[in-house]
Amino acid sequence: MEQLKIVVIGGVAAGPKAAARAKRCHPNAQVTIIEKGEWLSYGGCGLPYFLGATVKELKDLMATSWEAVRTPEFFKKAKDIDVLMGWEAVKIDRDNKRVEIKNVNTGETQELPYDKLVLATGAEPNTPPIEGVDAAGVFHLKNPRHTLDMKEYLLNNDITNAIVIGGGLIGIETSEAIANWGIDVTIIEMQDQVLPFLLDKELASAFAAYLEQEDLNIITGTKVQKIIKNQKGQVKGVETDKGIIEGEMVLISAGVRPNIALAEQAGLNVEKGIIVNEFLQTSDPDIYAGGDCVVCEHKVSEQKVYVPLGSTANKHGRIIGTNVTGGNEQFPGVLGTSIVKVFDWNAGRTGLSEAEAKQLGYDVVTAFVPGPDKAHFFPGKKLILTKLIADRETGKILGAQLIGPGDIARRLDIMVTAITFGATAHQVANLDLAYAPPFSPAMDNIINAANVIKNIIDGKAKNMGYKEFKSKLDDDNVIYIDLRTEEERKAKSLPAKNILHIPYEELRARSTEIPRDKEIIVFCILSTRAFEAQLILNHLGFKNVKFVDAGIQFWPL
Amino acid sequence: MEQLKIVVIGGVAAGPKAAARAKRCHPNAQVTIIEKGEWLSYGGCGLPYFLGATVKELKDLMATSWEAVRTPEFFKKAKDIDVLMGWEAVKIDRDNKRVEIKNVNTGETQELPYDKLVLATGAEPNTPPIEGVDAAGVFHLKNPRHTLDMKEYLLNNDITNAIVIGGGLIGIETSEAIANWGIDVTIIEMQDQVLPFLLDKELASAFAAYLEQEDLNIITGTKVQKIIKNQKGQVKGVETDKGIIEGEMVLISAGVRPNIALAEQAGLNVEKGIIVNEFLQTSDPDIYAGGDCVVCEHKVSEQKVYVPLGSTANKHGRIIGTNVTGGNEQFPGVLGTSIVKVFDWNAGRTGLSEAEAKQLGYDVVTAFVPGPDKAHFFPGKKLILTKLIADRETGKILGAQLIGPGDIARRLDIMVTAITFGATAHQVANLDLAYAPPFSPAMDNIINAANVIKNIIDGKAKNMGYKEFKSKLDDDNVIYIDLRTEEERKAKSLPAKNILHIPYEELRARSTEIPRDKEIIVFCILSTRAFEAQLILNHLGFKNVKFVDAGIQFWPL
Repeated sequence: MEQLKIVVIGGVAAGPKAAARAKRCHPNAQVTIIEKGEWLSYGGCGLPYFLGATVKELKDLMATSWEAVRTPEFFKKAKDIDVLMGWEAVKIDRDNKRVEIKNVNTGETQELPYDKLVLATGAEPNTPPIEGVDAAGVFHLKNPRHTLDMKEYLLNNDITNAIVIGGGLIGIETSEAIANWGIDVTIIEMQDQVLPFLLDKELASAFAAYLEQEDLNIITGTKVQKIIKNQKGQVKGVETDKGIIEGEMVLISAGVRPNIALAEQAGLNVEKGIIVNEFLQTSDPDIYAGGDCVVCEHKVSEQKVYVPLGSTANKHGRIIGTNVTGGNEQFPGVLGTSIVKVFDWNAGRTGLSEAEAKQLGYDVVTAFVPGPDKAHFFPGKKLILTKLIADRETGKILGAQLIGPGDIARRLDIMVTAITFGATAHQVANLDLAYAPPFSPAMDNIINAANVIKNIIDGKAKNMGYKEFKSKLDDDNVIYIDLRTEEERKAKSLPAKNILHIPYEELRARSTEIPRDKEIIVFCILSTRAFEAQLILNHLGFKNVKFVDAGIQFWPL
Repeated sequence: MEQLKIVVIGGVAAGPKAAARAKRCHPNAQVTIIEKGEWLSYGGCGLPYFLGATVKELKDLMATSWEAVRTPEFFKKAKDIDVLMGWEAVKIDRDNKRVEIKNVNTGETQELPYDKLVLATGAEPNTPPIEGVDAAGVFHLKNPRHTLDMKEYLLNNDITNAIVIGGGLIGIETSEAIANWGIDVTIIEMQDQVLPFLLDKELASAFAAYLEQEDLNIITGTKVQKIIKNQKGQVKGVETDKGIIEGEMVLISAGVRPNIALAEQAGLNVEKGIIVNEFLQTSDPDIYAGGDCVVCEHKVSEQKVYVPLGSTANKHGRIIGTNVTGGNEQFPGVLGTSIVKVFDWNAGRTGLSEAEAKQLGYDVVTAFVPGPDKAHFFPGKKLILTKLIADRETGKILGAQLIGPGDIARRLDIMVTAITFGATAHQVANLDLAYAPPFSPAMDNIINAANVIKNIIDGKAKNMGYKEFKSKLDDDNVIYIDLRTEEERKAKSLPAKNILHIPYEELRARSTEIPRDKEIIVFCILSTRAFEAQLILNHLGFKNVKFVDAGIQFWPL
């Protein structure tokens, strides 16, 4: 039998993983990786940390656990995989099953025959079509070369202000890295919130308030129209639709787009990204694709989504490696899970956002539950705010978002797993989660949040969004009842026109003080008391009573 | 309509939760809690931390998030719930629906009528029937009284050595608390491992090695036969089947047993604990029970198990509160999840243990995967060791256990959720878990472990348990191949009779050095290389090759 020839285009994440897995499944296969760049098999998600010097050396991003660096020699010696560095695949001849490759330095071309071809061509950063993007001091942060260039520029120029165009995940991670250099950072985001693909608006506003507290300048709803240069051709600022912002460096983080040109040229099915089936085969069954160049099915919406992530790329690589050597594993799709740490806060999401769920026609219920990430009496506990998005009819959880300084990753992954299996709020509320005081409250945040969803669906809990809560402060027909203790009131005050201070414990005794002709909004810090207060007041005959989602701890007032 | 009368027996966790939820669901109900002890609604799991002064004041364990202490007055004022402190329920008259209660101080008795009765009678610590348990300086740690007594004894006596009888979860947590006082602690466990209900033997041995490193003395497989007193009647040591151990204080942590006497006397169905249906009703439909006094159904084994935990008690309380006021919520059962932190390591489990799975007739596959809890290049990463237990036939995950200094709670809760929904290894391996370098490797430990299960089931990975690995060190017919680098070898050496040093990268080139007539065991630190090495050697025609589970990082050699 002829040796099975596998050609892998792309050497960062999905590609090397597919190659290594293919060799493990089929040691006789002849596996070749084509990589046009200078580096192989690196942790691209670590680049902002290398920029900010959290990670000291670039080679740390491409090291194994035993500190071997994943060079072409390593791949050959350890894994018997050939790597062609500095070669670019330029054309696929599907009829003759050959790939034409070109040396990026010499221009020399070659043809490589394949039995199975793997496209792991990754993604490129978007560049908005604005004047001046060619200025010195304008950067992307997608590969090691970008990062080294940016570090060099930071070292060799006197930079006091940097401008980050795009307040998404990478923009914000990189803002922290730049701030680590002692530089003032201004983030300019076109949409009216930061992290638009990660957080719903109310959580984004809480997160932005934290970022501002950490001295990042955040400008939302603003479009950069031009990058202004000095006489040397270097950045000296940007012109936006709201005025000029000065700065000696610009990072463009306007998202990425899949590298699909090669697939398109080969006549493969392509939409936003390369289309693959559940076996990660393209429309040509001998050509597989995975990682940042493909679109995946979203498990809740069942729509094709583009969510490029190192974790997905690795899963793709493994499945492709299995399938190109005769296996038939299926990739079940994604939930659009993302997480980010910036300074001492975290933010994450999985499943559908509130807007996405509404767009899909769900009758949406949301619950906001703030609380400590350890037992309330345990030292070192930190707050997190959980938002769950559910379907009123079935009680099924559709999405989850979390922010805060505490351990959100654990709760997010519980929800990832629960949503994967179509869990209802009742099922989530009764998960036998790991409990001991150093790890969580006896009723974990996730369990409380699921119970709030149930209380809302049952009609017991009558909640009001933060936006509405804030919009009625001047309303004569509304009375706010502040349930906090005297001590608690010192920390944060609410500028409401009509406000009554009745500590929660005194509410039953002092209910006669509350006017019966007004809309009543009860609030405390975390809304634990406010929900109880709403029930007490309902029981005492007050009809129009609501509590504010999540209390007032997290919201900018 | 007459007012609904709800009587709740027990005021620690399930009881107050049931009472509060009942009032929220049915504000008109008359709810009374009977509590024989001195404290109400406290976080019992926090007692070891109060003993060790991690938690400063006892009242912290019974405070709300706004620092109100949950006294009877608080319950009356805030929740309109009556609490009878210092009263014990002594008899249930089911025909007339009345409870006889007795004042623990005065002996006075009363009768309380009920429409719905809730048994939340909790558990008592076991006392082994050994001579001398009445000595001064012998303690339990189950309630605040025990803890205050123990603290007082520690303050007023000159104690340099303490003995803990029982190496289970509470015994080990409390050992740390006692060690915090600068006291030498010896743990004596009857079974041949620590944490017998938490960890399988190999993980327990790794965990015990860590505890010894933290200066705890651990003696397993040893029975305490007698507590030795001095002339003042104080502890001065214990006599075991293997000799005498000196110490001036003894903590007995020999498990707890449910308080079922009242239920038994009332003729309710009782086995190891009170038997309840999915609505948490006892065999009398007007009497509910929850928390530490009941047995629950295990979701995997479908057997009744006794796993008393504050988290379960709270869930029970909520469901009971709902159901005694006309609801019909179901409690879906437990997975026996437990977690513990001791010094800087954590240990946890969920689902079936390996032995339990075998007993139930499963063809068991286990995977051991060690790895960092953040991206390999991210500072502050810590190791964890994951063990998954799966069914070979279906690939279904039956149980998970984790130990180590890193973040095990997150991975444990992923497995809790996955096992709840009957997930297979393939499903777990493709969960869209939250990934960013500060939170996890691109392929999380759990995903790697699920893939190892798949590799073993597929016949690709040929693994050997740590015990067998250690048992063959002197075997002439076995050759150990050490795949580590020169640098790595300095840290830990393996005393094997036949050992060959071939760094992983050189294996393909140097395979001729390996004898073909011996059993081959390959190893490295975390077994990443060793699995690859096994495949390489198989491909080169070596038949009898295995790698050791999890490498040699975690195992005491």
